[in-house]
Amino acid sequence: MNQAVHNKRLRLKRVGIDTYRENVVFMNRNCCVYRAAGFQAMSKVKITADGRTILAVLNVVLNDLMVAPEELGLSEQAFQQLGLPEGTRVCVDHPEPPVSMDAVRKKIGGDILGQEDFYCITRDIVQNRYSRMEMAAFLVACVETGLERSEVLVYTKAMAATGQRLDWKKPLVADKHCIGGIPGNRTSMVVVPIVAACGIPIPKTSSRAITSPAGTADTMEVLAEVNLSPEKLRRIVQKEKGCLAWGGTSRLAPVDDVLITVERPLGIDAPGQMVASILSKKLAAGSTHLLLDIPLGPTAKVRKRDYAHQLRKIFEYVGDRIGIHLEAVITDGSEPIGRGIGPVLEARDVMSVLRNKKDAPVDLREKSIDLAGRIVEFDPAVRGGRGRTLAEEILTSGKALAKMEAIIDAQGRKPQIPPVGSMVYSVCAESEGTVASIDNYRINRIARLAGAPLDKGAGIYLHKKVGDRVERGQELYRLYSEFEADFNFAKAYIKRYSNGYQIEADA
Amino acid sequence: MNQAVHNKRLRLKRVGIDTYRENVVFMNRNCCVYRAAGFQAMSKVKITADGRTILAVLNVVLNDLMVAPEELGLSEQAFQQLGLPEGTRVCVDHPEPPVSMDAVRKKIGGDILGQEDFYCITRDIVQNRYSRMEMAAFLVACVETGLERSEVLVYTKAMAATGQRLDWKKPLVADKHCIGGIPGNRTSMVVVPIVAACGIPIPKTSSRAITSPAGTADTMEVLAEVNLSPEKLRRIVQKEKGCLAWGGTSRLAPVDDVLITVERPLGIDAPGQMVASILSKKLAAGSTHLLLDIPLGPTAKVRKRDYAHQLRKIFEYVGDRIGIHLEAVITDGSEPIGRGIGPVLEARDVMSVLRNKKDAPVDLREKSIDLAGRIVEFDPAVRGGRGRTLAEEILTSGKALAKMEAIIDAQGRKPQIPPVGSMVYSVCAESEGTVASIDNYRINRIARLAGAPLDKGAGIYLHKKVGDRVERGQELYRLYSEFEADFNFAKAYIKRYSNGYQIEADA
Repeated sequence: MNQAVHNKRLRLKRVGIDTYRENVVFMNRNCCVYRAAGFQAMSKVKITADGRTILAVLNVVLNDLMVAPEELGLSEQAFQQLGLPEGTRVCVDHPEPPVSMDAVRKKIGGDILGQEDFYCITRDIVQNRYSRMEMAAFLVACVETGLERSEVLVYTKAMAATGQRLDWKKPLVADKHCIGGIPGNRTSMVVVPIVAACGIPIPKTSSRAITSPAGTADTMEVLAEVNLSPEKLRRIVQKEKGCLAWGGTSRLAPVDDVLITVERPLGIDAPGQMVASILSKKLAAGSTHLLLDIPLGPTAKVRKRDYAHQLRKIFEYVGDRIGIHLEAVITDGSEPIGRGIGPVLEARDVMSVLRNKKDAPVDLREKSIDLAGRIVEFDPAVRGGRGRTLAEEILTSGKALAKMEAIIDAQGRKPQIPPVGSMVYSVCAESEGTVASIDNYRINRIARLAGAPLDKGAGIYLHKKVGDRVERGQELYRLYSEFEADFNFAKAYIKRYSNGYQIEADA
Repeated sequence: MNQAVHNKRLRLKRVGIDTYRENVVFMNRNCCVYRAAGFQAMSKVKITADGRTILAVLNVVLNDLMVAPEELGLSEQAFQQLGLPEGTRVCVDHPEPPVSMDAVRKKIGGDILGQEDFYCITRDIVQNRYSRMEMAAFLVACVETGLERSEVLVYTKAMAATGQRLDWKKPLVADKHCIGGIPGNRTSMVVVPIVAACGIPIPKTSSRAITSPAGTADTMEVLAEVNLSPEKLRRIVQKEKGCLAWGGTSRLAPVDDVLITVERPLGIDAPGQMVASILSKKLAAGSTHLLLDIPLGPTAKVRKRDYAHQLRKIFEYVGDRIGIHLEAVITDGSEPIGRGIGPVLEARDVMSVLRNKKDAPVDLREKSIDLAGRIVEFDPAVRGGRGRTLAEEILTSGKALAKMEAIIDAQGRKPQIPPVGSMVYSVCAESEGTVASIDNYRINRIARLAGAPLDKGAGIYLHKKVGDRVERGQELYRLYSEFEADFNFAKAYIKRYSNGYQIEADA
């Protein structure tokens, strides 16, 4: 128990264990430091050497196979973050409690947090000082009592400040974003090539799906590399005006990418968090103009017009104060857009629209033209009302397709689009009539259970949409899975709950 | 990617890693199951074999040292829970999402949960279906919008139903509990021997400290074994009438012990959770009568009389409906009780009171007699108002001490009380005058930073209490640490914030 023993340094060992975004270290149960310092398994410890420090969760190893008593094993994440060679002598200590957890506890108690609080919290998270448990506490605290506008504003700035910041040195850098909730709604992949083909810079970064079966990043990844460095992203946008990248590896507001690893499994998605996540990314990405798509419908994320307006006002409030010209459009979110749901199936829809194929989904095409038209009008040189026509011309002429191909090549074309899942199941109408509604939530859920977005080829292809006539036994949609477990979950869900379709008998 | 590969069974291996209460499994990066099933590091997986199933967090190992590609490594917790020998062929699969997380999300959204929700949640937690992240989400959700009385009642029952339940088959089984917040307030260790010496059964189980420098279990552990099996606890109480055990290993409402592993590092402590935690333990322990101590003071856990009354009413509401006769007393929580703070220092105070030492802390003695007197009067044979006198006689006569020694022997006496921490620092008055107040919160915080309760000998010994005269430079209290890091944290805190004492100059 004497200090000499407690301060003894351990030899650093890379044990080659992938622990995703969480730092983990391994200590032998008979390690003198473990015994002397009174560490507890799964508690956080601080590792210091040569002026570098990391925090990690401690796992205690009961035998000598992985680490000897005088060694400290580091997971890949911890090893990379510490950045010192194997064999380095390191000190292990109790960490100072992350100071910003006091602010989280204040929030749990219902307080309003200030700028300093949010800066501390986001800094601590980005520096890996929070465990997933602590992040969950912070996120749930922000969801439950909600965040005031003023909090969303400082939280947005704090999130943007955690990473790099791009400056395009241009008066107009456009962006678009959809708050999500509508299956198949991949308009960005049509809008970006149209806008870029008009000569307006639109460096689009997206996150991966949180609660949906595919995000733009997941779908674009089917066609091209989406993990782009800030330098590469800049080069592509300079040359092609547009890109469709994942926001994660580009280190724009990286705290959001850390938080998503907790939001995703918890399945939480709250307004304040949503506004701050979206606008911090846009701020860091150097956008000057943003078109925001808020789909409204009985099974969309936003179900009431009042709430859509309230949300729009928070976006406008924060946008104005961080210097982004923001226009929010409330769109039809009553059923899925397009026919494919899941990365591969959605990528096919997008390409058929860009190729002006006869069987391309009309709703995806029309909505994309509408949105692109609004963005084109951000350009002061475009006369009010002319945007839509311009956008349609560019799409119909094939210029948008050519631009998309150029963007795919610039980002790094994937050798081939993966096939859809090999396990196929047809969901058929149980009665004849007209499709009265399609439940976005259920369709999302079923497509996720089928394996999307992790299994790229998994998902759903809709054969019938609202207003279509169906005969009894006629196929409504087809389910695709890559693995039997997922396939069975999705089928069991349909059987237990609903296939998501409501068929109205003819009068 | 074919199903045959995906369903291939892995050989179970015990890798001897202690991951506390969380199940962890280790899979080789080149394992065919890992590649085929699209698992993600740190995600949850389901392990099945011979009709047994466990859930665990997946760590992916990048080399072959710990597990070969055809092996699945299990942490000690996972290995124990699965209960199958090494070499068993096991199936690894995606787990069904824990159904009760839907209820947690409802709670996050502000809904009131029903009986079925709480039963599902507590069952899933006890069966290790929740990660620490998910538990944090549940706990924070319950803190923030709070729990209705009706929710606390069903939550209490649900928690009690997660483990064993004792039935003493006696009309009077007494218990006492303090809601905490007051440093040094170790009355249970005086009350239990007094009440037991009266012949009233009092099988006291306590949790360890959550946010304080010592719980009764931590302090008793200095003198005796506190990890007692239900059988041993029963035998001790039958023979000695009383015990002072840790509630954790006795499998009474074990969900609480799991939740504490998240509450403790998060430092959250909310009324609904508190009432359900306390009363579920008492219900499972078979208590029929409970005396509840609610200390009230400006720096106590309960700071307003209104809140104390509100809390008492929730306790009474739930107590009445689960069949426990409950009396709540609101006590003086204006300063620490006794002089020692931290397990060893508090154990010394307790023993000096039981030994009727002249220098024993008067407040600890008097408060213990008061509380014991109230409990003694639970016995219908004792005339109202006689309890206090009886209790005092038993303490003064040495019968309480003899009972305590018998209980210590029955539980398993520790060979010797550990010494106090070897690093000592005197905190002295900066001005002369009278001690006007001592801040419970700060004193708790300082004692915890000094290393209590994990380091048994760490803590604080108070030389001056409220009302005492002090000269400038005179010692107020002494700080004890076992490790330099803790010692420095505690000293830095005092320097930065406050030593917790307010000295009033003479008029």
